[in-house]
Amino acid sequence: MSVPSEITLDMMRRTLYAAVVCDALDSLGLVNQSPRVQLVPYSGDGLLVGRCKTTLWADMYHTDPRPYELELAAVDGCRADDVLICAAAGSTHAALWGELLSTAARNAGCVGAIVDGATRDVRTLRSMQFPVFARGTSPYDSLNRQRVIDVEVPVKIGGATFSPGDLVFADVDGVVVVPRAVETETIRAAWAKVHAENRTRDAIRGGMKATEAYARFGVL
Amino acid sequence: MSVPSEITLDMMRRTLYAAVVCDALDSLGLVNQSPRVQLVPYSGDGLLVGRCKTTLWADMYHTDPRPYELELAAVDGCRADDVLICAAAGSTHAALWGELLSTAARNAGCVGAIVDGATRDVRTLRSMQFPVFARGTSPYDSLNRQRVIDVEVPVKIGGATFSPGDLVFADVDGVVVVPRAVETETIRAAWAKVHAENRTRDAIRGGMKATEAYARFGVL
Amino acid sequence: MSVPSEITLDMMRRTLYAAVVCDALDSLGLVNQSPRVQLVPYSGDGLLVGRCKTTLWADMYHTDPRPYELELAAVDGCRADDVLICAAAGSTHAALWGELLSTAARNAGCVGAIVDGATRDVRTLRSMQFPVFARGTSPYDSLNRQRVIDVEVPVKIGGATFSPGDLVFADVDGVVVVPRAVETETIRAAWAKVHAENRTRDAIRGGMKATEAYARFGVL
Amino acid sequence: MSVPSEITLDMMRRTLYAAVVCDALDSLGLVNQSPRVQLVPYSGDGLLVGRCKTTLWADMYHTDPRPYELELAAVDGCRADDVLICAAAGSTHAALWGELLSTAARNAGCVGAIVDGATRDVRTLRSMQFPVFARGTSPYDSLNRQRVIDVEVPVKIGGATFSPGDLVFADVDGVVVVPRAVETETIRAAWAKVHAENRTRDAIRGGMKATEAYARFGVL
Amino acid sequence: MSVPSEITLDMMRRTLYAAVVCDALDSLGLVNQSPRVQLVPYSGDGLLVGRCKTTLWADMYHTDPRPYELELAAVDGCRADDVLICAAAGSTHAALWGELLSTAARNAGCVGAIVDGATRDVRTLRSMQFPVFARGTSPYDSLNRQRVIDVEVPVKIGGATFSPGDLVFADVDGVVVVPRAVETETIRAAWAKVHAENRTRDAIRGGMKATEAYARFGVL
Amino acid sequence: MSVPSEITLDMMRRTLYAAVVCDALDSLGLVNQSPRVQLVPYSGDGLLVGRCKTTLWADMYHTDPRPYELELAAVDGCRADDVLICAAAGSTHAALWGELLSTAARNAGCVGAIVDGATRDVRTLRSMQFPVFARGTSPYDSLNRQRVIDVEVPVKIGGATFSPGDLVFADVDGVVVVPRAVETETIRAAWAKVHAENRTRDAIRGGMKATEAYARFGVL
Repeated sequence: MSVPSEITLDMMRRTLYAAVVCDALDSLGLVNQSPRVQLVPYSGDGLLVGRCKTTLWADMYHTDPRPYELELAAVDGCRADDVLICAAAGSTHAALWGELLSTAARNAGCVGAIVDGATRDVRTLRSMQFPVFARGTSPYDSLNRQRVIDVEVPVKIGGATFSPGDLVFADVDGVVVVPRAVETETIRAAWAKVHAENRTRDAIRGGMKATEAYARFGVL
Repeated sequence: MSVPSEITLDMMRRTLYAAVVCDALDSLGLVNQSPRVQLVPYSGDGLLVGRCKTTLWADMYHTDPRPYELELAAVDGCRADDVLICAAAGSTHAALWGELLSTAARNAGCVGAIVDGATRDVRTLRSMQFPVFARGTSPYDSLNRQRVIDVEVPVKIGGATFSPGDLVFADVDGVVVVPRAVETETIRAAWAKVHAENRTRDAIRGGMKATEAYARFGVL
Repeated sequence: MSVPSEITLDMMRRTLYAAVVCDALDSLGLVNQSPRVQLVPYSGDGLLVGRCKTTLWADMYHTDPRPYELELAAVDGCRADDVLICAAAGSTHAALWGELLSTAARNAGCVGAIVDGATRDVRTLRSMQFPVFARGTSPYDSLNRQRVIDVEVPVKIGGATFSPGDLVFADVDGVVVVPRAVETETIRAAWAKVHAENRTRDAIRGGMKATEAYARFGVL
Repeated sequence: MSVPSEITLDMMRRTLYAAVVCDALDSLGLVNQSPRVQLVPYSGDGLLVGRCKTTLWADMYHTDPRPYELELAAVDGCRADDVLICAAAGSTHAALWGELLSTAARNAGCVGAIVDGATRDVRTLRSMQFPVFARGTSPYDSLNRQRVIDVEVPVKIGGATFSPGDLVFADVDGVVVVPRAVETETIRAAWAKVHAENRTRDAIRGGMKATEAYARFGVL
Repeated sequence: MSVPSEITLDMMRRTLYAAVVCDALDSLGLVNQSPRVQLVPYSGDGLLVGRCKTTLWADMYHTDPRPYELELAAVDGCRADDVLICAAAGSTHAALWGELLSTAARNAGCVGAIVDGATRDVRTLRSMQFPVFARGTSPYDSLNRQRVIDVEVPVKIGGATFSPGDLVFADVDGVVVVPRAVETETIRAAWAKVHAENRTRDAIRGGMKATEAYARFGVL
Repeated sequence: MSVPSEITLDMMRRTLYAAVVCDALDSLGLVNQSPRVQLVPYSGDGLLVGRCKTTLWADMYHTDPRPYELELAAVDGCRADDVLICAAAGSTHAALWGELLSTAARNAGCVGAIVDGATRDVRTLRSMQFPVFARGTSPYDSLNRQRVIDVEVPVKIGGATFSPGDLVFADVDGVVVVPRAVETETIRAAWAKVHAENRTRDAIRGGMKATEAYARFGVL
């Protein structure tokens, strides 16, 4: 089966998943594209696909002279299909994400958030069906505890780099980020892998021993 | 809207949630009222509200000469609306909580348990609809592995102090404890925050940019 | 009530659970039969019962000269009622388990997997209703990241030893392994505990104070 | 023996130590004045005493548009007897401290650094006899990895608050910070404890049983 | 060379070391006799040999109604060659050990302490030459933070069991405990290993390839 | 000052150090060449320089059918100036390194070992002056607990890749590995940095404010 000349985000959402994108990146030699931390899908375990809108967060312990400044600008600055990337080095000093930011971000077109920190308002996020992947939860407001110190810069979560505009996939297996430079190639490889005849897999599903199927077809 | 002259536990259960109580405490300068550990809601993610009945646990490694003594006294000593607070420094050496203690505690009026340690009998707890928040699970019996060494004393979980009789709130976002001395003030502040006109929030829900709404109304 | 002369795996599946087996082992002096790590039931929280088919895994960082060799042999070598035990020292360097291995293993009679490492394809595992208990998830393929280095040898997970052929129980409370030498005795003791008259428990369910019930009947 | 009317920093350096200051704070009800993390004395284990000059650090992953700006201002801004407090939430993403900052800070009067992060140039720091307490070491330059985001604000290390101008003590036992408001009282209490007749201690040193000495004198 | 009919503690101190005792225990099938945690030799890295005097500690958060009671009894109750074993589950909530307890314990004949928790007064301990192995340091007094809840009972540190009267060895490599029942056999095996002709080792020291030496002599 | 046309290992040993090599790699865009774990210099804190001889280790729990096979081959296979790289994923399941391997390795020309695991025989290693950097210590023999599963393959420690033949530097600040392809360029850059006129540094040493020196000379 041939790969379509253009694969839209909606096509990706219906067809791909994090693991197959990770495999496609592996096949291109990019072997470090998934954060090595558990990011829990707190508000639904479907697939999130979009483009990285990055924010860099820091812990703080004093009265913030300009609270919310950069974080509100970041959520308001989202465009259609953006995914907010909140890099906080895993800090759960407070909940940097919640209902209000989700509402504002969605207004601007944002389709979900990946938080290397904590979220709150989990029950509301679920009822909003706004996908948030996070390291944990906290009832603490981020005011005077955490703030955005940079936006639209490359950030790291669990050792993987998220640059503005990169494609990102997240589901219950984990999060995968696709660098711009290899995006077309990666998505086509993932698409092909999903749609290609998979004789090993089919043989095993048909009851053939895995060892024999791998020996016969040469791939898993 | 005015705050009622008395706010009962049942009113709190219908109206409040952990995060808004945490915000009310923040507004009063009490910024360390939620344990800095993840307490998982193993048997339902609704809101638990009640008063702290505290127990302090220790690991042990020998045959307990007086097994269960203090823990049975603690569960039997519960009164209506008590929440058992089991401070075990996060130890998962065994499951210090389970079905039997839940049954006995509920008989005495206890409405849930917060366990800085492990629980077991999770499926039964779910069918009992008895809310237990814990650090983890374990199939090990606590007999000769953990025991209660003190009851009705102040204890700490994740850096937050739980004193006997304190109000406690727990939901999927986390656990929050309200010291006796500020209880009325805190609950009134939380109640007011839930019921007050929230122009920022409404404006954002209505589609206004978050930056603009915050600039106009001055609060989030 | 008397204990049946033979207790089959299916009888165990209908009657027992991890915690009661753990209690039976305690009563025989075997107090270290549950791994001291959290193994999350990623694809359903029912009870898994079977016999250990052990595999020992290691992290690697180079091109595997003989990929999949031992792991395919292990899954193909499963017999009815086997549970794959994947000892990887808790490494989440990649997902060592997933859909394909589950399919092949089930073909051979395997009833579930216990993974001291990561799994992927969680949504598919759920739809397959194939029980997998693991330390976490990862979208990374194990190819060139982890491999099986031994099969059918005793292995350890969280300090507990799993030997080939040992009975293993896993549910939402945790995992318990029963050494061959004490299997009959353990299962009979667990069976007896489930079926025996439990006057303490019944009394507490009936509303008696736990302290009084324990004083009267001498056991919990 | 009477406590002197004024106790200078040099007198403190000759007489006090971290543990006795911690005890004095305990006696005043301030029980959370030592960070709950290990801060290793990398360049000598003598006592460091001075006043807090605070800096707040954040991890970053992009080219710093204004490298070193705030950190150089902070070290140059030190006055006699200042101790640089580098709050980086324990991050060892890079070495935020090293030889050059030590030299510049000492030029300005700084007497040591307490780093909730990593240092480098340890051998040089030792030969300079510049005391640095840190969470670890790293050979990585902090350029484009960490930067100062605030100076002269209250910061937290391991749960303890360090405010600008607070007295701080550090030795091989740990770090203790004395809030301004209780400084005189604390230092006098510590001084008194060091110099007071300690009958319990002397009795035990003289060979009396500890139980008897405590029973007789009522204090340890 | 023959093994002496009696091997005194002083002979052990001059001849043995932790690793060789661990090897002797391995040879007898006791493979879990060293705690799986790092116990740092804070006051000298020589070999400590003695008999276990066990204490079990718990964290606490309220005013202790009977401070020091059991801990003073424990130190006063030491006999010649005892080693205080302080099992606190690794808690560094405070320093449970320090100068005063060391003095009192030494008065009673105690030769060192092994602390699964924190110590303080490290500089004094060094000048006293009293060997203390611990998980960390803290300037906090244990009063109202930790207390002894049991003495002379079996305790666990890092998974290894220390029973009253057991022989214990500690040096910079780690800590090893020898159960009473196998003491004679273990010490004789360790002694023999130290004194026996070691042809493999001598050959390697003499320059023979390790592979060849092992092939020729069959042992390392 | 000009950089010599050839820089030998001995010249590096006299002149360079881990941090300056790390800076040189940074300047070439290689920003991940130091393991993100603490490797403690257990037997001296001088600089270790050599070429990587890699070994990959795995935990095991059964009787090793071919004990020592690959590890003895690895140590015997060392050539002059090799540094044994022992990648064990940080496992301290046993001491994979010790006196005997050090002796055999040194016989073959090996100049030190970097162990992402535990070592033992620390006192002997110190008296041998054989540099060993490790994650921790353990008295446990590695026999039947850990074994080498591959040699002369690329391995990872703390996220950094060590390939056979790569240059490696280790001192008290940490460990840095230089890939073959950029070795000449890196060493020349490090050499130049050490020897070049450093006006910023000299100015600061001379007492100039750091801010002014950086403003004037444009570099740190």
